[in-house]
Amino acid sequence: MPSRQQVGRLDRGRDPDAALFTARTPRIVAARRLHRRRDRDGTGRFLAEGPQAVREALAHPDHPVVELFGTPAAFQRYADLVTAAADRDVRVSAVTDDGLAALAETVAPQGLVAVCRHLDVPLAAALDRAPSLVAVLAGIRDPGNAGTVLRTADAAGAGAVVFAGDAVDPYNGKCVRASAGSLFHVDLVRAADPAEVVATLRSRGHTVLAASGYGETDLDALLDGGGLTGPTGWLFGTEAHGLPAELAALADARVRVPLHGRAESLNLAAAAAVCLYASARALRSRESP
Amino acid sequence: MPSRQQVGRLDRGRDPDAALFTARTPRIVAARRLHRRRDRDGTGRFLAEGPQAVREALAHPDHPVVELFGTPAAFQRYADLVTAAADRDVRVSAVTDDGLAALAETVAPQGLVAVCRHLDVPLAAALDRAPSLVAVLAGIRDPGNAGTVLRTADAAGAGAVVFAGDAVDPYNGKCVRASAGSLFHVDLVRAADPAEVVATLRSRGHTVLAASGYGETDLDALLDGGGLTGPTGWLFGTEAHGLPAELAALADARVRVPLHGRAESLNLAAAAAVCLYASARALRSRESP
Repeated sequence: MPSRQQVGRLDRGRDPDAALFTARTPRIVAARRLHRRRDRDGTGRFLAEGPQAVREALAHPDHPVVELFGTPAAFQRYADLVTAAADRDVRVSAVTDDGLAALAETVAPQGLVAVCRHLDVPLAAALDRAPSLVAVLAGIRDPGNAGTVLRTADAAGAGAVVFAGDAVDPYNGKCVRASAGSLFHVDLVRAADPAEVVATLRSRGHTVLAASGYGETDLDALLDGGGLTGPTGWLFGTEAHGLPAELAALADARVRVPLHGRAESLNLAAAAAVCLYASARALRSRESP
Repeated sequence: MPSRQQVGRLDRGRDPDAALFTARTPRIVAARRLHRRRDRDGTGRFLAEGPQAVREALAHPDHPVVELFGTPAAFQRYADLVTAAADRDVRVSAVTDDGLAALAETVAPQGLVAVCRHLDVPLAAALDRAPSLVAVLAGIRDPGNAGTVLRTADAAGAGAVVFAGDAVDPYNGKCVRASAGSLFHVDLVRAADPAEVVATLRSRGHTVLAASGYGETDLDALLDGGGLTGPTGWLFGTEAHGLPAELAALADARVRVPLHGRAESLNLAAAAAVCLYASARALRSRESP
């Protein structure tokens, strides 16, 4: 039996001269299939690319990392991550540059890709941890937008982020990358029915606010009136179409970010940032008046 | 001589059966070259794509639109824009779908592309109009990011947006599109030396704030302390590297958006949105206490 350290460091059996994994090695071919949603859904696994995502994945309390692939150069550069992987019994395999390129979706993948187990938890479990701020992405289709909102929600202190309805797969590679590690920081929830998410949030004491360019409530007025000091769930819709009217109607209020200039609207990421940070400010002022 | 209306509506001489412009028509070939920065710089012209941008360009007080190309279907659908173009002596030419596709950079260009003259004004001229909020994009290279920040700055009420240093060309097609019309709303400034922009802003009474993840000043503390109620110029750096330290050092303060969760940073568009809207809120509360 090889020691854990040996498995962690090389996983090439006992022969230090064994060839590196290539793009044709079956385990690489199998991992590469995780670029497709069908295979992610079927296996419950996804890929996290680059040292930042790998580091956050390894630090996650649920130990989602199943396998770590990297070039010898990357293993040398990020030796701490190889050690951390070995400490967690993660299989670590050295790959050729071509093998890495087959796994990676970016041009400059920085040499590391991890296979991870899905992380999402039921909404009820996330709410049991009493997050004062929750972001709900209702039907957001663009993975870059979704990942950016996830990252911003984390920065603003949201404890849970819900991908609801026919939102993009949160494990889509572009979404994972745009989240810049935040996918591993928040309680991630996937929910089929956004209306049910609204009902559950309200039943657990959250005020539900629908971000809408046509909302009847001005964000500044809401902030000034103390409307953001309690537990809050924000609903965000798509860039092109916003929230469906019937979903927005279920919220406690439909809130618009004020437009002071002549722009007709904000893009989704900017609007979400302004809304979530207004909540963060109100929640923080409540905690430390 | 054809009447203005005839020129505006058809520009095919007097023969209503004349062929539409195609991708090979010299004027289309010439306009298409404006996809390249060299040709934009050389001619002082750029392309604005889609009905929203065309509408904003036609509404601009400096009449930047030189020529409007569109498919017959788009001319029918956006007849108001054709009329507006004709009223402004803009040459209007009908093109084939292929001709339009040659001009457009997007997959679904919605049938309209306008050739426009550059719009930028000197910084001094922009400051003569006493904008209380100015955004400076220092070396931002990604056109989508730059256009998004421009759009957000407009929404937050910024009167001027400065592209400084080796920032992306504001007339880059992707930047124009990401700005969603805001390129035509604000005073656009191009400046070679960001340090000179800082000096000029300060000499004209603006507090200059450098947005920086490592800033010594917390944005909320600044807002609470009344530090955002006067004329303000915000400096934003690149997504990857932020602002150069020597430039940030010239600002009155280096300001960080507070990170409440575990995210290491915000992306540029989100950070700019939070900063600019903090200023908008402070400036508005000063105006209507």
